[in-house]
Formats: sequence, C-alpha cells, structure tokens
Amino acid sequence: MRNIIIASTSTLHNGTYLDYLLPLLEKHFKNASTILFIPYARPGGISHDEYTSIVRESFLSINKEVKGIHEFENPQKAIENAEAIFTGGGNTFVLVSELYRNNVLDTIEKAVKNGTPYLGTSAGSNICGLTMNTTNDMPIVYPPSFRTLGFVSFNINPHYLDPDTNSKHMGETRETRIKEFHAYNPQPVLGLREGSWLEVNGDSIKLKGELTARLFKQNQEPIEIEPETELNTLK
Amino acid sequence: MRNIIIASTSTLHNGTYLDYLLPLLEKHFKNASTILFIPYARPGGISHDEYTSIVRESFLSINKEVKGIHEFENPQKAIENAEAIFTGGGNTFVLVSELYRNNVLDTIEKAVKNGTPYLGTSAGSNICGLTMNTTNDMPIVYPPSFRTLGFVSFNINPHYLDPDTNSKHMGETRETRIKEFHAYNPQPVLGLREGSWLEVNGDSIKLKGELTARLFKQNQEPIEIEPETELNTLK
Repeated sequence: MRNIIIASTSTLHNGTYLDYLLPLLEKHFKNASTILFIPYARPGGISHDEYTSIVRESFLSINKEVKGIHEFENPQKAIENAEAIFTGGGNTFVLVSELYRNNVLDTIEKAVKNGTPYLGTSAGSNICGLTMNTTNDMPIVYPPSFRTLGFVSFNINPHYLDPDTNSKHMGETRETRIKEFHAYNPQPVLGLREGSWLEVNGDSIKLKGELTARLFKQNQEPIEIEPETELNTLK
Repeated sequence: MRNIIIASTSTLHNGTYLDYLLPLLEKHFKNASTILFIPYARPGGISHDEYTSIVRESFLSINKEVKGIHEFENPQKAIENAEAIFTGGGNTFVLVSELYRNNVLDTIEKAVKNGTPYLGTSAGSNICGLTMNTTNDMPIVYPPSFRTLGFVSFNINPHYLDPDTNSKHMGETRETRIKEFHAYNPQPVLGLREGSWLEVNGDSIKLKGELTARLFKQNQEPIEIEPETELNTLK
C-alpha cells in the first residue's frame, strides 16, 4: 500500500529544516530506522555530502539514521533495499537528470508502489506528479525527458505563490504560467502553498495543513481546495 | 554588420506595448518598411494571429508594417527575405521548440549575421544568448535542445529581479538560481532589469537604458555593470 507525503516546501519562513513536518514524519517513517536520502537536486549547488549532512542532522531529533544514495555503489539496489525514501528540494532539472542518469526512476516507482514510505519536498514533490512541466526552477541542465513518477494523476506546483498585486515587475505570475501550461497539456495542476502537503495512503490522496490549495484545470477557472479534500479522482 | 537590440521586456510598468523603445526602433528599423514578427512564444497561450495583431498595432505609430512568420508558407524563406526581424516574449520553451520544429534557428543566425536588423524582447532576448538555460519561464513543453542563437557569448537573464528582502516566500531568489546555473555551466550571465537593453552593432555590445545590469561569472561575486559599458570581450 502506497504511503507518500508530497510537501510544498522543506522549510517554512522563520522555521528550521523540516521542523514543521517532524511530528508527522515520526509516524510516517515509524517502521524505518534508516532513511535513504536522494540529494540529487543540490539546492544552491551544494554537494551531495553537504546536503545529506543537513538532512541527517534534522532526522536525528526523531532518531532516524540517514544515508545518501550517493554513498552506495548501486543506487538501484539502495532503493530496492531502502526502509524509507526522502527526495529533497533544489533544482528539479538537476534532480530529474540525475534520476535518469542513474536509471532509478522506475525503481523508485516500484518500491513506493510496494509500500516503501516516501517523502518529497519541493523538487522532490514536483517529481511525484505526471511530469515536471510545472516546476518553478531554472532549466540549468537538460534532462532526457520531463516525465516523472506519476504518484498522482496530475501535476504539482510546489511553493505556489499568489499574484502580488503591488508588484511593478512585468514577469508572468504563477497563475499565468500555469494557464500557459494548459495551452499545451491536459492534466490538472495543484498549486501547493508553503505549509501544505498531500498525504497519499493507498488510493486516497488528501490535502493536509491549514491552507487551501489552488487547483487549475484546462479551460476552467482555478478554484480553491479545502484541507482534507479527497483528490483521488482528480486527473 | 550585425544590428541587434536585446531588450529585457517589451512593456514597462504603466507603459504600453513597446512604447519606451519606439523612438529607438524607428532608427533601428529605418531601412525596413515591413518587419517579420516571430510570435512563437505565445504569451498567455494566445494565438499567433492575436499576438501579431498586438505587434502590428504598436508598429503602426512608426509607420512599419508587420507580418507574422506563420502567415508564410515557408518560414525559412520568410526569414531570408525579411527586411527586419522581431521575436516577441512569452514562453521560451514554446519559442525554442517552434524554432527547432520549423528549422529556422540557423536561418535567423545567418540573416542577422548578414545585417538583417533584429529585435528581441524577453523570451526573444533569451534566445540571443548561448543557451536558454537562464530563462525564467515554466518548462511547459520539451524542446529538442536548449542551444540558442548565441548573438552574444554569454547568457541573458531578462526581467532580472533583485531579491525581495521582505518576502516570506521560501522559493529561490533569481541570484540563487543563477548561482546554481554556474555549478553546471561556465558562461557568464547578464541579468537585464526591465528598462535595460543591449545594443549590438558589429562587434560592439553595449548596455543601454538608465539602469545598471547584474553580471554573474562562475566562481565570482556578481557585480553591477554601468550603462554604456562595452561587453564585447565578455565570455
């Protein structure tokens, strides 16, 4: 049975790394003593080791060990043997390129389908959607494909940001960008605000946290979704 | 002799489409009665016809006719025969995909090298750099490559935005994104603020407008570049 948390962000404003999620993660990872961390997204270009240290430090407080996937000779086996998997944020293009280069996308999909608990934050949540076409990241490398894990039958837009009505900047708002996405792609997009997450348990997909999320469907006006809404029929 | 304007944006806050550039464009396009417009970037997903109408309206005031490249049966010949070329903004992924699909990237490069005056705004400026890896746009379609025109030997980041020190949003700042770009790519990136543009005349590349631009080089602290700075040795 699938057991997945898809979080908009790892860190809230004025918070520390993962702190707001730790009580939840203690339950989510209750049967795991070691978490396999996938540091491929390299936020700010930091190394896999540096990134894994930050995550290790954070999980110490709930008594979980953390191993970076880069510490294993065979990343596919590392995933197959993992008690739990966490993919951290950073740059989605870098993350997806590395997942393809190491040929582990299907391995993760299979492990999670078979019940290995998964946590994604930011870029690690982006890849839980059908494709990475709704990432906010800069395309600093060229991945072999934009197809991702498809744990949910729609796309995720993490760090969803409402239009700033006071801004004098002429760049596109997030809403405009997602509207442009729907000129070329049919699947819904869920804009997850920072502090929101999805909990996937078996066939159930529920919005969690205190905030509403913004749902964009092709050729329809976006709507706000309340916490606890069941999204398992959304596609 | 090359004759190129690479503008950060088509439209300033409280301005109308291209208005701040029109006096300059009157000179830039002085030998052209008709401008070939490339509407492939489709801002907001609007049609090629709709987009071309907006541009046609704007150029009326300086007595230029506008033809959309999509109105021609053979887009390569349209470029070869063009008196002047303008590539408008929108989504860079869509723009670059269409440039490759219509096989016109090299045709534009050759025409502009041979003296056809070129104007780019936003996405149309992004493609003047070596690659589109420093676009701000959402990757709503998958282009066959990120390589672009290389009119300058560096990358462009249009709509450059300084970090908002009051923001509580945890998404990456533009500066962080460009720093991540430099973890994987060697070329400099010029952050062009809205209201700034580059003028390329022959071998000269000068920053124009009233604002400074932010220059990012790999493994160096970013610096501010003054208007009128010659950038032809930057690479």
